[in-house]
Amino acid sequence: MAHETATLAAYVADLKYQDIPPEVLERAKVLTLDFLGSTIRARRDAESTPSLMKMLEALALDGKGEATVFGDSKTWTPAVAALLNGALGHSLDFDDTHADSSLHPSAPVVPAAFAVGEMVGASGRDVLTAIVAGYEVCCRLGNALDPTSHYARGFHPTATAGTYGAAAAAGKLFGLSKEQLVSAFGVSGSQAAGSLQFLVNGAWNKRYQVGAAAMNGVIAATLARNDFVGSTEAVEGKHGLLVGYSDDAHPDKAVAGLGNTYETMKIGVKPYPSCRYTHAAIDALIAMRREHNLTPDQIKKVEIGLHRNGITLTGDAATKRHPTSVVGGQFSMFFTGAIALDQGRFGWDDYDRLGDKAIDALADKFDVVQDDRLEVGRTHPFGARVSITTDDATHERLYADPSGEPTSFPDAQAMQQKFLTLARPVLDKRADQLADAILTLERFDRVAKATQLGRQ
Amino acid sequence: MAHETATLAAYVADLKYQDIPPEVLERAKVLTLDFLGSTIRARRDAESTPSLMKMLEALALDGKGEATVFGDSKTWTPAVAALLNGALGHSLDFDDTHADSSLHPSAPVVPAAFAVGEMVGASGRDVLTAIVAGYEVCCRLGNALDPTSHYARGFHPTATAGTYGAAAAAGKLFGLSKEQLVSAFGVSGSQAAGSLQFLVNGAWNKRYQVGAAAMNGVIAATLARNDFVGSTEAVEGKHGLLVGYSDDAHPDKAVAGLGNTYETMKIGVKPYPSCRYTHAAIDALIAMRREHNLTPDQIKKVEIGLHRNGITLTGDAATKRHPTSVVGGQFSMFFTGAIALDQGRFGWDDYDRLGDKAIDALADKFDVVQDDRLEVGRTHPFGARVSITTDDATHERLYADPSGEPTSFPDAQAMQQKFLTLARPVLDKRADQLADAILTLERFDRVAKATQLGRQ
Repeated sequence: MAHETATLAAYVADLKYQDIPPEVLERAKVLTLDFLGSTIRARRDAESTPSLMKMLEALALDGKGEATVFGDSKTWTPAVAALLNGALGHSLDFDDTHADSSLHPSAPVVPAAFAVGEMVGASGRDVLTAIVAGYEVCCRLGNALDPTSHYARGFHPTATAGTYGAAAAAGKLFGLSKEQLVSAFGVSGSQAAGSLQFLVNGAWNKRYQVGAAAMNGVIAATLARNDFVGSTEAVEGKHGLLVGYSDDAHPDKAVAGLGNTYETMKIGVKPYPSCRYTHAAIDALIAMRREHNLTPDQIKKVEIGLHRNGITLTGDAATKRHPTSVVGGQFSMFFTGAIALDQGRFGWDDYDRLGDKAIDALADKFDVVQDDRLEVGRTHPFGARVSITTDDATHERLYADPSGEPTSFPDAQAMQQKFLTLARPVLDKRADQLADAILTLERFDRVAKATQLGRQ
Repeated sequence: MAHETATLAAYVADLKYQDIPPEVLERAKVLTLDFLGSTIRARRDAESTPSLMKMLEALALDGKGEATVFGDSKTWTPAVAALLNGALGHSLDFDDTHADSSLHPSAPVVPAAFAVGEMVGASGRDVLTAIVAGYEVCCRLGNALDPTSHYARGFHPTATAGTYGAAAAAGKLFGLSKEQLVSAFGVSGSQAAGSLQFLVNGAWNKRYQVGAAAMNGVIAATLARNDFVGSTEAVEGKHGLLVGYSDDAHPDKAVAGLGNTYETMKIGVKPYPSCRYTHAAIDALIAMRREHNLTPDQIKKVEIGLHRNGITLTGDAATKRHPTSVVGGQFSMFFTGAIALDQGRFGWDDYDRLGDKAIDALADKFDVVQDDRLEVGRTHPFGARVSITTDDATHERLYADPSGEPTSFPDAQAMQQKFLTLARPVLDKRADQLADAILTLERFDRVAKATQLGRQ
């Protein structure tokens, strides 16, 4: 191991807006907008939001400040705003994913960047620079931890590596020196937590720990800004992140290509509000429905071929065919497939159709089976094969990957539409203004002029 | 593994004041008083305190509430008070230690108990019950993690296991049900962090992470009280604490003897404000000075025999003989031994003598050597052999263990004296009143009537 912490700190300290390639800045704006859509909708609709709010009220952490919580009517203090935006933005399981590190980079990074950006009166360019710095740090640390080993020990990289990404974004906006950023990463080592144990019972601490990562990154950077002495070598050290949280760390990945290649460009987005394993099939169903003018009454049978991991998560007919909760629907190939085939689209509001008889009837026509073509010799597990049988034909389509990955990144219009579908029910016409502002964030001399459009 | 989380939750939910043996309650009061002495003095004197305060101010987390920060003039909101009391109480490295788990139980537990005790208007008995519950949970989890393995992965058990202990204490005072405590432990699994990387450069995040454990325990219990769904089986689960944070966990130790034996009675205290490895020698030096009426000018040579681990930490003549900082002094067998021999006592205020020529001259007479009698066939590493050579004799004493362990726990007067030495310079006469109140805490119908004496 060779000075990975100091190398990352120097990268963040030295990063300049004008050195970031234009396509990376464009992508960062689109990813930010995408994340805010989830945040805004979750403020109103996520089932865990009232409990989070009651905790903050009970502990008198709900004091008024200057920081925006997207979709909320009041303004909050900075660290608490970061906590809320981070937790909310991950609450719908509809936010972005960096596949190599298996983490959701916007959830810790974007809230830390906005909270500190508003706090210090930063410009839109400053905030975009900080977001890119945060993405690069947390994605690289996730790669270095080795997601398979990190997962095997029970850790959730969005929260663990995310704490460092949030500290990087916050520290960049504070203008910390390299040495101060080393200290901020040292304090992050005191806070890096996040457990996969939520998988056992679908618990909400999954979203809490992601928000906590955003908050803790802000705290770490603020301590470092105020002369707090944090550990050095927090990443590669004898008692550091890579030793504690992985059995198969790759320290070189923490700094590989730093400043030359952009992990930001490898971040994918979800076109549909459901498990990623359902997405390629939904893509195919929507395309085939359109091409063949299919209507539900024509359908005799639908067979979906998935990777076996996708079957485990979404394909068990006994438990997944007729879900009754949003989380159940998110992990049902039957429900999500039936919605896509019935409507030719699938968005967050379609969870209103949970329990709908027409959808349940269509879902009864679905079978989910293993398809070896999606496993043998492949590295990406998210493909699907769809076969639709009607009275007079069987149509079949094999999609190797779902849309939304970097190679099939949705166009700007599709991303704006996803955002508006989520945000308009909460912000009404303000949603369009906020979308325009985020997609032109570099034009704002003060980022607060953009973020204030995100308040209810 | 067999339901350790649920067993601990049921124990905490069911624990009653009248079921706790009187000697355990007495010990809990003494340990609490001991901890508050460090907290109060650190509020004024710890070098990291101004930085912590500036962070809270910068993030507007310094709002006024009803919670006491000991030694502070204002009152704070509950979770922030827990953070501050926890960080301050660990800042002097003078707080208690549970040897089997190698953790400092008061630092996360007592601040969480007072913060929530004041918040809900609890009685002194309620708070004492919560403190015992917290001690029992965190010490047992520390045992179950296996301190050697936990340390080897780079984790600081005072912070990791401490988060669960703080959640137990806070949850007990909220009157959480067993199921709610399971959820609180589930959220604790999202927050359990704490790194030993501070050892590399003497960083301050050691104290921050302990305060964060207290704060996070309060947050976890408050979320659970407000219907937040936390992971089940957070301790023993497939992705739980024991899998993630240890390679040699002993799940049975998490619940061994629960309700029958008290880990609280195995908590030791420090009679001197320095590394535990210096304590047996200081005991011997003070005793020999008194018995032989030794004065510094009579001393020709002092030889201290230690366990080799003690030499590594405190006995390197090249770097440890004439320390210039408090932390340097805390880890110098030369400085601490010279103080003890010169004065016949050693307290926090003696760090004023760093750089004192008389002390440096006496320290020049010390040698620190390995003594096999302190290693072979022994399980406790903290003994010392002291040989003092004067003009006419050589006096020698071998102490197998330092004072302050459960078998040589200081009497009430000595503990009160330690507290007053720390607290009087900050609280003046109020220190005596606070000591009396804490040592009779069971008489208070509202704990706030006792804690308010701890404000400056």
